[in-house]
Amino acid sequence: MTTVGILGGGQLARMMALAGAPLGLRFLVLDTAGDACAGQFAPMVVGDYTDRAALEEFASRIDVATFDFENVPAESAQWLTGKVPVFPNPRALATAQDRLAEKTLFRELGIPVPPFADVPDRAALDAAVAVLGTPCILKTRRLGYDGKGQFRIKTPADVEAAWDALGAQAATVGLILEGFVAFQRELSVVAVRGRDGEFRAWPLTENWHVDGVLSASLAPAPVDDALRETALSHARKLAEALDYVGVFALELFCRDGELLANEMAPRVHNSGHWTIEGSETSQFQNHLRAVLGLPLGDTRMLGHACMLNWIGAMPDAGPVLREAGGHWHDYGKPPRAGRKVGHATVRAEHPAELAASLRRIGEALGRQAQVAPVIARLG
Amino acid sequence: MTTVGILGGGQLARMMALAGAPLGLRFLVLDTAGDACAGQFAPMVVGDYTDRAALEEFASRIDVATFDFENVPAESAQWLTGKVPVFPNPRALATAQDRLAEKTLFRELGIPVPPFADVPDRAALDAAVAVLGTPCILKTRRLGYDGKGQFRIKTPADVEAAWDALGAQAATVGLILEGFVAFQRELSVVAVRGRDGEFRAWPLTENWHVDGVLSASLAPAPVDDALRETALSHARKLAEALDYVGVFALELFCRDGELLANEMAPRVHNSGHWTIEGSETSQFQNHLRAVLGLPLGDTRMLGHACMLNWIGAMPDAGPVLREAGGHWHDYGKPPRAGRKVGHATVRAEHPAELAASLRRIGEALGRQAQVAPVIARLG
Ligand SMILES: Nc1ncnc2c1ncn2[C@@H]1O[C@H](COP(=O)(O)OP(=O)(O)OP(=O)(O)O)[C@@H](O)[C@H]1O
Ligand SMILES: Nc1ncnc2c1ncn2[C@@H]1O[C@H](COP(=O)(O)OP(=O)(O)OP(=O)(O)O)[C@@H](O)[C@H]1O
Repeated sequence: MTTVGILGGGQLARMMALAGAPLGLRFLVLDTAGDACAGQFAPMVVGDYTDRAALEEFASRIDVATFDFENVPAESAQWLTGKVPVFPNPRALATAQDRLAEKTLFRELGIPVPPFADVPDRAALDAAVAVLGTPCILKTRRLGYDGKGQFRIKTPADVEAAWDALGAQAATVGLILEGFVAFQRELSVVAVRGRDGEFRAWPLTENWHVDGVLSASLAPAPVDDALRETALSHARKLAEALDYVGVFALELFCRDGELLANEMAPRVHNSGHWTIEGSETSQFQNHLRAVLGLPLGDTRMLGHACMLNWIGAMPDAGPVLREAGGHWHDYGKPPRAGRKVGHATVRAEHPAELAASLRRIGEALGRQAQVAPVIARLG
Repeated sequence: MTTVGILGGGQLARMMALAGAPLGLRFLVLDTAGDACAGQFAPMVVGDYTDRAALEEFASRIDVATFDFENVPAESAQWLTGKVPVFPNPRALATAQDRLAEKTLFRELGIPVPPFADVPDRAALDAAVAVLGTPCILKTRRLGYDGKGQFRIKTPADVEAAWDALGAQAATVGLILEGFVAFQRELSVVAVRGRDGEFRAWPLTENWHVDGVLSASLAPAPVDDALRETALSHARKLAEALDYVGVFALELFCRDGELLANEMAPRVHNSGHWTIEGSETSQFQNHLRAVLGLPLGDTRMLGHACMLNWIGAMPDAGPVLREAGGHWHDYGKPPRAGRKVGHATVRAEHPAELAASLRRIGEALGRQAQVAPVIARLG
């Protein structure tokens, strides 16, 4: 009997436990919130990620540890490695937690990135804006998610406001300035690397964000072979450089046929949720297979899939459940503005069928805007 | 927040909870065994199915009740209906629990059955054997499962031994004598009926038993359209007659192109486990959708699927996990002779691909005999 410890008890941990149960695994979740939604299907230890007593108890009851939450303090992850195997390794986690370290690594590996600069203080910001030009984006180096901790500098006149908003964090989590990329498309590679170094990737996913939060994903992304090969080769290089084990996502901007790496998520990723129904093996099960040293599952697609995120509150399930390829995912969370509370995946054999299904769902739920870009891309 | 109560906490309840989590459901399992395997992923009430206090507690914490175990006493099911909606209804459960009532209903509905006779006492057994002839099978009317509670009477000389083995149960669970059917194939219809009467069935499944226990299933069963239509019409008639709500299985013998109904299982069924990966909607999720009055999910297949049961102990997972379409299901049970501890489902786009996959698995696990009949049928 193998127990997998998961640091973080959100929807990613929840879906991981559900996908891991058939492998005969047990789970234990560590989260600061006693009502974390993974706790509905797995036992929990409630405590802070830095609370040594909680970590001790957690470690004593598990065989291997992994993450649903990438901002677990690197020292806690490191401490855990003295007790149980930890995948992905804490160095990979530490790199992916820090936009500066991550972009520096991308650049070293020959993976193109938007221009960026470290912003330790106000003078550095002025200097960086002068070099990168406007528009550009000031971001916290660490602890940002879902577009939080970002400020868009449209003209030099915004620099003051940007510093007012984020300047205080220069001394804590650090700041980075990035050139604004006028991309046409956002893509992600969701991939998995095994303990033995085997690498597999799902078909490329195209993503649409609203207010910095993922709104919809489409797989396979309609891209040409060369672009796909380039994206996969970036992902593979990155995984190898970090000796990464498990599932991760590489987010890419596509501008005029060129790929620029935005960031890496060292965990199962929202843009891979469609793999539950749309692929032979889901990202959740393959993450566990990787972490446990089991053979990786096949990443081929079953048709075409679109994932729609539900933010804030769950809509009526009926319109999705009535679609032949409609699948519902309610994370069991109380509604709250801006919160990811669930998603739907719609699967179809053919793009036109998928588009028709999305059109019906969009209309029935009054969410035409959410499905429109996906339908346009399928069209 | 809806909590579904499940009477019985075995693998069926476990897979139901895993399939229902994405619908945002919570579960509560009632089982006599505190270590019932569904308890690894759902909270439990431990108690006997006739224990009023346990039933009271169970009922007070759920919104709707269903079953993983068909032999829940009919009175307990009936009592529950006074507290919460119960699906399938207790009358359907009571009928399906009793081979005599069930076969009588089949006959009334015009569904062909093997010859059978009630056996209230020894004299009735002699009379029935005289009418039905040998070979025939003496079975308990109630509480039989996996071929338990059966005695094969090959010649009249076996009657004595049959009565020695089962006669004492004539006065408790009752006995029935059935003519032995020299069938060529065993098929099952796994179907679902909604609260609103909507009926859907998965493609027909072909099943192979070893020592009375399901060993392998193949879907779609290679049968002609007429046979399939007949089987589905039997299942639909039965569901309507019982005002059945939820998933059920109708087991059929096929002899010289003719279908004879063996029995009905008033629950998700082992011969439908392949639907988890092999169909757009699994039997487990559709059972819950039916029970909750949600739209039923699509029952179309994704390719071809074969389910292999693991009895007694789990084999090495490697050979299945290494197959592109290989999926593993370990129920988290301690090994025990004769116990269903898990299964594998192998999925493929084409029959030849499926056969090749099964051949590799059979060889790697030294289970050539288990896969042989399936490969022969695919051949
Ligand atoms: N340099 C940039 N140029 C243009 N758009 C950007 C840039 N950086 C971020 N964005 C936009 O904001 C979105 C969120 O940014 P980013 O991925 O850096 O934030 P995050 O908080 O880590 O988000 P997530 O949690 O979704 O990964 C991007 O997907 C993109 O749409
Ligand atoms: N009348 C019959 N003629 C021939 N074979 C039979 C007959 N009845 C049962 N069998 C064989 O025994 C197997 C198990 O019988 P049956 O389905 O009645 O028992 P069970 O204990 O309810 O099994 P399960 O739990 O698998 O449904 C059948 O699938 C079939 O292979």
